[in-house]
Amino acid sequence: MVNTQFDDRSLHEECGVFGIYNVQEAAQLSFYGLHSMQHRGQEGTGIVTSDSENLYGHKNEGQVRYVFNDANLSKLKGDKAIGHVRYATQGGSGLMNVQPFLFKHSTGDFGLCHNGNIVNSSQLREFLESKGSIFQSTSDTEIFAHLIKQGRQTNFLDAIKESLLYLEGAFAFLLLTKDTLYAMRDKNGLRPLSIGQLDNGYVVSSETCALDMIGATFTRDILPGEVVMINQEGIHSSFYAKDVQHRMCAMEYIYFSRPDSDITGLNVHTARKQCGRMLAQEAPVEADIVVGVPDSSLSAAYGYAEESGIPYEMGMIKNRYSGRTFIEPTQAMREKGVKMKLSPVRSVVSGKRVILIDDSIVRGTTSANLVAMLKQMGALEVHMRIASPPIIAPCFYGVDTSTYDELISANMGLDELCEKIGADSLYFLSEAGLQKALNNKGLCMACFNKNYPTELYSKLEEANKDGKC
Amino acid sequence: MVNTQFDDRSLHEECGVFGIYNVQEAAQLSFYGLHSMQHRGQEGTGIVTSDSENLYGHKNEGQVRYVFNDANLSKLKGDKAIGHVRYATQGGSGLMNVQPFLFKHSTGDFGLCHNGNIVNSSQLREFLESKGSIFQSTSDTEIFAHLIKQGRQTNFLDAIKESLLYLEGAFAFLLLTKDTLYAMRDKNGLRPLSIGQLDNGYVVSSETCALDMIGATFTRDILPGEVVMINQEGIHSSFYAKDVQHRMCAMEYIYFSRPDSDITGLNVHTARKQCGRMLAQEAPVEADIVVGVPDSSLSAAYGYAEESGIPYEMGMIKNRYSGRTFIEPTQAMREKGVKMKLSPVRSVVSGKRVILIDDSIVRGTTSANLVAMLKQMGALEVHMRIASPPIIAPCFYGVDTSTYDELISANMGLDELCEKIGADSLYFLSEAGLQKALNNKGLCMACFNKNYPTELYSKLEEANKDGKC
Amino acid sequence: MVNTQFDDRSLHEECGVFGIYNVQEAAQLSFYGLHSMQHRGQEGTGIVTSDSENLYGHKNEGQVRYVFNDANLSKLKGDKAIGHVRYATQGGSGLMNVQPFLFKHSTGDFGLCHNGNIVNSSQLREFLESKGSIFQSTSDTEIFAHLIKQGRQTNFLDAIKESLLYLEGAFAFLLLTKDTLYAMRDKNGLRPLSIGQLDNGYVVSSETCALDMIGATFTRDILPGEVVMINQEGIHSSFYAKDVQHRMCAMEYIYFSRPDSDITGLNVHTARKQCGRMLAQEAPVEADIVVGVPDSSLSAAYGYAEESGIPYEMGMIKNRYSGRTFIEPTQAMREKGVKMKLSPVRSVVSGKRVILIDDSIVRGTTSANLVAMLKQMGALEVHMRIASPPIIAPCFYGVDTSTYDELISANMGLDELCEKIGADSLYFLSEAGLQKALNNKGLCMACFNKNYPTELYSKLEEANKDGKC
Amino acid sequence: MVNTQFDDRSLHEECGVFGIYNVQEAAQLSFYGLHSMQHRGQEGTGIVTSDSENLYGHKNEGQVRYVFNDANLSKLKGDKAIGHVRYATQGGSGLMNVQPFLFKHSTGDFGLCHNGNIVNSSQLREFLESKGSIFQSTSDTEIFAHLIKQGRQTNFLDAIKESLLYLEGAFAFLLLTKDTLYAMRDKNGLRPLSIGQLDNGYVVSSETCALDMIGATFTRDILPGEVVMINQEGIHSSFYAKDVQHRMCAMEYIYFSRPDSDITGLNVHTARKQCGRMLAQEAPVEADIVVGVPDSSLSAAYGYAEESGIPYEMGMIKNRYSGRTFIEPTQAMREKGVKMKLSPVRSVVSGKRVILIDDSIVRGTTSANLVAMLKQMGALEVHMRIASPPIIAPCFYGVDTSTYDELISANMGLDELCEKIGADSLYFLSEAGLQKALNNKGLCMACFNKNYPTELYSKLEEANKDGKC
Repeated sequence: MVNTQFDDRSLHEECGVFGIYNVQEAAQLSFYGLHSMQHRGQEGTGIVTSDSENLYGHKNEGQVRYVFNDANLSKLKGDKAIGHVRYATQGGSGLMNVQPFLFKHSTGDFGLCHNGNIVNSSQLREFLESKGSIFQSTSDTEIFAHLIKQGRQTNFLDAIKESLLYLEGAFAFLLLTKDTLYAMRDKNGLRPLSIGQLDNGYVVSSETCALDMIGATFTRDILPGEVVMINQEGIHSSFYAKDVQHRMCAMEYIYFSRPDSDITGLNVHTARKQCGRMLAQEAPVEADIVVGVPDSSLSAAYGYAEESGIPYEMGMIKNRYSGRTFIEPTQAMREKGVKMKLSPVRSVVSGKRVILIDDSIVRGTTSANLVAMLKQMGALEVHMRIASPPIIAPCFYGVDTSTYDELISANMGLDELCEKIGADSLYFLSEAGLQKALNNKGLCMACFNKNYPTELYSKLEEANKDGKC
Repeated sequence: MVNTQFDDRSLHEECGVFGIYNVQEAAQLSFYGLHSMQHRGQEGTGIVTSDSENLYGHKNEGQVRYVFNDANLSKLKGDKAIGHVRYATQGGSGLMNVQPFLFKHSTGDFGLCHNGNIVNSSQLREFLESKGSIFQSTSDTEIFAHLIKQGRQTNFLDAIKESLLYLEGAFAFLLLTKDTLYAMRDKNGLRPLSIGQLDNGYVVSSETCALDMIGATFTRDILPGEVVMINQEGIHSSFYAKDVQHRMCAMEYIYFSRPDSDITGLNVHTARKQCGRMLAQEAPVEADIVVGVPDSSLSAAYGYAEESGIPYEMGMIKNRYSGRTFIEPTQAMREKGVKMKLSPVRSVVSGKRVILIDDSIVRGTTSANLVAMLKQMGALEVHMRIASPPIIAPCFYGVDTSTYDELISANMGLDELCEKIGADSLYFLSEAGLQKALNNKGLCMACFNKNYPTELYSKLEEANKDGKC
Repeated sequence: MVNTQFDDRSLHEECGVFGIYNVQEAAQLSFYGLHSMQHRGQEGTGIVTSDSENLYGHKNEGQVRYVFNDANLSKLKGDKAIGHVRYATQGGSGLMNVQPFLFKHSTGDFGLCHNGNIVNSSQLREFLESKGSIFQSTSDTEIFAHLIKQGRQTNFLDAIKESLLYLEGAFAFLLLTKDTLYAMRDKNGLRPLSIGQLDNGYVVSSETCALDMIGATFTRDILPGEVVMINQEGIHSSFYAKDVQHRMCAMEYIYFSRPDSDITGLNVHTARKQCGRMLAQEAPVEADIVVGVPDSSLSAAYGYAEESGIPYEMGMIKNRYSGRTFIEPTQAMREKGVKMKLSPVRSVVSGKRVILIDDSIVRGTTSANLVAMLKQMGALEVHMRIASPPIIAPCFYGVDTSTYDELISANMGLDELCEKIGADSLYFLSEAGLQKALNNKGLCMACFNKNYPTELYSKLEEANKDGKC
Repeated sequence: MVNTQFDDRSLHEECGVFGIYNVQEAAQLSFYGLHSMQHRGQEGTGIVTSDSENLYGHKNEGQVRYVFNDANLSKLKGDKAIGHVRYATQGGSGLMNVQPFLFKHSTGDFGLCHNGNIVNSSQLREFLESKGSIFQSTSDTEIFAHLIKQGRQTNFLDAIKESLLYLEGAFAFLLLTKDTLYAMRDKNGLRPLSIGQLDNGYVVSSETCALDMIGATFTRDILPGEVVMINQEGIHSSFYAKDVQHRMCAMEYIYFSRPDSDITGLNVHTARKQCGRMLAQEAPVEADIVVGVPDSSLSAAYGYAEESGIPYEMGMIKNRYSGRTFIEPTQAMREKGVKMKLSPVRSVVSGKRVILIDDSIVRGTTSANLVAMLKQMGALEVHMRIASPPIIAPCFYGVDTSTYDELISANMGLDELCEKIGADSLYFLSEAGLQKALNNKGLCMACFNKNYPTELYSKLEEANKDGKC
């Protein structure tokens, strides 16, 4: 679990979704569920509810706990809800992209939200505009809504399934009409979506930690290509596509998801610890202590320590009281040595040979800073070990991995990189090691090997230049 | 100028628009312009700008001075802008209806905002939905945008004019593309819209006070049915309709507009003073002092005092420090006598026969309170004089006059009403008197005489039950 | 009633006090009472209450409606309270000076607040420090508390009266112990303090408008030199000094107090109107309209208009939505003509000979701006008439009249001043005229004639350089 | 490092102090220094600075990052500063107790702040009041200020030293005059205070983490009974008492201090890890995993895991996005299973025998909740191991350990307690074990053994009923 807001690393999850059906105080429970997935996005959040008669919505920029309060939650009536947390893009695309969207239509209003990225969105926009559609956001979510309404299917489920066939890319959609909740995943299963039960109702969520948070019981993952429809008659499952495969985003394990979430049956903390163990096997080094970069690399560091027999130490501290409103140190202050988010622990690292475990390297600037700080605090050696392979290609499926140009491993070999970040040695976990650590699950590892599971419709160089979710 | 937010009277203006073309710091100037029209709506506000390349937008719920700050204004780049202030509906329709809207389209994005009300909006929504449109708000503004894009005209101005023909009702629209500002009024000229100059640029505004505020010079009013197009080549005028007429909303003079604004060449303060004079002629009464209800009735009270020779006195005070965040007195506090917004001045009214001038009576509750407070403070007699005719019918053109059932004059005769509010006598200005006071301008006085200038498409009983602008 | 916060004039009231005894929800009523005196100071505010067992306090910087809310008011238990509003000093002396002070003492805690200024405070501080006292503010209020505790009197009332004898200057003190409320005025009666009744309880207030606000009935003014003690046994009155006289601050009538307040039996609006009438007699001029500077000069303008027969017009508008959080126009914006607080009404003043009534001139800069704006809007002539005499000396009694150097009338004759502000003529009300208008009440007019009713202990040049209350 | 604000455990540090001398932007650096000690208190914070001419202060209720901003920091001029963070008392004693205090005195103003608790404060207050002192807070800090000024010593350092002799209890004081910074510790050294260097200046701080945060180099701890005076001539050391001893609060190691701080030369994380190791030796148990309660017990859990050879697992997660403004789950929500701060990780603990390491048990309610949550998530056994001895007595030296009645170990034996919290076994670290783990430093362990190093002046039952710092 990492506060992407205040981390200077350039790897960002894009969004999380949460839905609930047939449970009293659906908005309040959505609040807690979304709160537990705050790490997936802090730019904005919203909830749409239904009391079987009307839909109600509230959304705004900011974190869950600031956007919602007792007053506005109490106006979100009903026992059905969908909600969304949205990641902060650089461009600050603003309020218009905060989800869920609430579409008004004489045949029935509906709420819609989305985690992922549609790769053929430009083509679809053009197509829809030619039929008279106009858009009020840059979000892919709106495209899906227009497809549903432009379609010729009169049955809503059929219209949804027909529309999904147009969409290429990664998605987990939640759609709420006044009486029905729909949940669906793309045919490669790139983004996670799980389903659980609470009392007599149902809960769907990007991560299972949200189920645990509200006391719901995990039932199963929604499958690639599956459309789950929940209404008064219970759960109904069908598939919009036949050629499905399991290609869960590896980064969900490595970096994004909370350690207490399970993905495809594998706990995230456990997966990371296995990565650390594998890394210790692949790249041992003589040293005094193992240190993890808080918070996302701690599990891997324990794994490395256990496997290597070298003691794990708390050599780096994360400040818990930072936040959006914080006064950042000026350059003059930084030069004085003022630190804000991460502080090495002098007494622990001084005079020691340190193995520093991080989960990934994107631009390399954070790594260089960490190594420099450790050495300044007296570390004799810093051996950097990365618990995932080098990122050599951008993501097209909803992860902001920075643009191609900024990916340091796409532009620099291992030795050069080691020198650049000032480490005494550097090693990345191998692809095979990662596969093994993750129990050979079906994974998307395109950012490590350019093996994209879908067509791309655009160039590597263009990836991640907008801020879609 | 009245703070409709905190007034318990039930008469509400709905929105104001402001636009600027070819002036540096367009967003900043829009901020001041909108601020001067804050009395037209306090629910929400927004600005969309263009720097000839891109459109930028920011909007939120709240007053101008809270929604905008140096940081977000500086992101609204460019020398072209449109902005909007929105009135607070009871239903709290929320953020989705705050304007301007910013529509994304491959043929060019555009911003759009609106003052008024479209009476055939339900019919148009149905029509557009049948062609595949979906809506994200309950605002009429969105309908106009869809009409433009659904139309077959390839030239933008032609598309606008074609679309306007579909719209029945009252409107003043501002539309901004990356290089052009369009301003248009309905064919009855129900809502005001003026144009002025500032340096080498142009300014359009619902009220002329916004021109004065930023140092712009008034040029002329936009005419009923006129579409003004402002681009690099200057101003271009054309008409979308031929059967135009002047039917300016009389309430703009009586209540809504700021006293320093001019409408159709007549200053609002002057108009109100003339109403007061006319009222003194029509309904003289022996008394000691003339008192106006602050702030909107002060001008009429001066006029009455001058004409009657009875001295004007400050017999009622309005508290300047109230506001949205204020703790309202509980019922127990009110029973103790705690007053918040309006306080009678005991020393001025005690032992006096008071002529109390108000601009209008909607539900009658405020009037009853005022009379009671004056008597409690020792007034011997209270003669109520209203500087406009009785409101007997709801407005369909963007004024929230309460529903038909709540209009006291629609349901009660003069004597009964006088008794109900506890006044010693009561008189309303006649329609003829109002016409004369307003120099026989072409006016819409439908709320006084049911003489609606358009078809209505719905029943009197249904008016003002939503919160459109 | 004037918003000193946002007025660029340099005349500031310093503080208001409010107290209540034996009325349920004393804190809530204090809130409304203080709110009605918000014009006397916006820097900070506080309330101390007693439930006969304990004292409770809350205070902070800011306006009444922002500092207090339901949550903190509900913690201020009891049926006894004192409260304070404090004026904003330039120096931003901050939280430490916000009142009431709450002193902890084993013989009983007490709350204390104060309107006025002690002229021998430096001498008293020195004396007290020599006896071991230390201070935590720059407020005179603290001095009085130390005097009480340093004194040898064992009876609290005696200790108060003994201590008051040390104090030279202007004051209205309220002091609350757990069971008794004390209210006292200096022996010249420089600052106002009235007493009223509400149900079975008592209310004391700097202005009577606060009594009206909460439904209390005015009983009488507390007299110069009087100490009123209110406890379970009722009201007890005594005097700490024998050589008392009536020297009420003339500025309370001219500028500070709300028009609906009565001071020494004379209503403020009425007093101002009489000043306007007197001014019309002393300084008539041929012109078309009379215009007052909102809000404090409107009454005088009506009086001038009535006496002269020249019509009063609303030639200047004050923006009601300004406030502390407002984005001030930059210099560039000002040069464009952006106005914020006061706007002339073009249609009213254009082509007219205007008599502009203001209540006073301090530094002259506001006057110059007003004249310039009117002429820019087309006024043919601007004749300035000031409803009080020239201010030629600073105040030592709690009014921030700017320093001696800044007082334009102390440094410039009438003709020079007229030229400087750009008016076509300029006239001040005479001292005799003011006396007559105010019914020959006993007044302090030291700022007009240097006739100070007390010793000063410092030089004219030193006045108003701190920010005491 | 633990967020005491939102932890439901009942053990609270009371305050932290920070000072800086002869470094530019002293206020800004104090901001960062205090921010790094935010865990020591979140109720309020303040900074007083000196530019050698004047003292400047700002303080308010709330966290460092909310109380300060660029605007108010920039007004705190000078190269000398002291600052304070204050712990949140239940009683909400409010603004009056927020520090530093800024005392005004003709012989020179001074700022003063304090961590600790004076046990004879009632006696001293009475004594001072008998000499005429009055107090404006319930803080011990004010007592010290009065003692200094009541004393007969003319030299300031002598006055300080004389005054310190009156004070019985625990304290670390910082005092700033316009040109000198004084830092002093009580003669038992109960509360920590370290000194470091930055450029040519000096830094003093309750914890060394604040030195690291701003890039300062640790020099040494201030000694029990020492008074350090820092002025233009450098550092001057002297002692106010001769019978000094080392009795550092053991809880600083166990719970309060940040893991990256060093106390008396021993790193806190290292100390905790040693406690964990010792605990594993004293109380081994057969189990599958070791889990620590985040954040303060993680180090002990690592130590236990290493020593026992049982793997450490992340079996419990702390939500990073909680905060003061958070909407707490209602009882109904809690019953549904909604968790906020701590969540067990189902996949990690399910089917496992868990050793749960916590740093201490105060009331026992948190422990019971944790055990219940783990079992609900499928843990087969939960063996609780506490890395410190049972707390059987309250603290009188500035730690809020709850009242005597609430201390569960003061009222219940081990077996009964084990049953009450529902654990399968329970063991506390022995006193001897703790001593050994902390390298036999001189410690105050009164809360474990009632061996108080000072007289108490009050009864055990009275401890921690106020909220002093």
